[in-house]
Amino acid sequence: MKDWDETPYPEMIRNLPEVDVPVEGVRAWLLQGKDTQMVFFDIASTAEVPLHSHCGQWGIVIEGEMELTIGEETKTYRKGDWYFIPEGVSHGATFLTRTFVIDVFDDPGRYKPKQ
Amino acid sequence: MKDWDETPYPEMIRNLPEVDVPVEGVRAWLLQGKDTQMVFFDIASTAEVPLHSHCGQWGIVIEGEMELTIGEETKTYRKGDWYFIPEGVSHGATFLTRTFVIDVFDDPGRYKPKQ
Repeated sequence: MKDWDETPYPEMIRNLPEVDVPVEGVRAWLLQGKDTQMVFFDIASTAEVPLHSHCGQWGIVIEGEMELTIGEETKTYRKGDWYFIPEGVSHGATFLTRTFVIDVFDDPGRYKPKQ
Repeated sequence: MKDWDETPYPEMIRNLPEVDVPVEGVRAWLLQGKDTQMVFFDIASTAEVPLHSHCGQWGIVIEGEMELTIGEETKTYRKGDWYFIPEGVSHGATFLTRTFVIDVFDDPGRYKPKQ
């Protein structure tokens, strides 16, 4: 991996507004669209995303390894694995390593930039 | 792969504005940001992207296989392989299969939506 602040994200991504994520160990950058958000996550192995649900979400693992539960199914997702979580379906994750994922949210207000 | 119009992209992505791409065999959808564009590509194996250069570009292969040349180096990129092309560096690609890639462009005007 390139040593861009130890992330796979070059400066053009790390210069996007940072997101206020209410989970310890998670940093993220926001590409804000009119009806859609794209978020670039950098997640410590110690982070835990508890089960929750919201708008539709599509994402892909850039680097790392996570256990993602979608509805009733838990699977390990690695570099290049992508997933779709329909609106309202419960999901949560734990992380086996530091993990980088990018996610698209079908809601322009899913995340807020840090003030 | 899910059968979302035979793409890995759910409706929430295929409902984004389509991009006018001047390369035969390429479809793409645009997430327009203030200073940045994110483009979801669906590329036929017959497509050819000739050498060209522009703003900085970061991308990842979602499905498929491509030969990507960046500067002097040509490599095969598959599902989960990501790359960074600095501003002004010549690059081009050919495709061994139908290929899905998503790219971030450090320029809000790199692509225009179809009229």
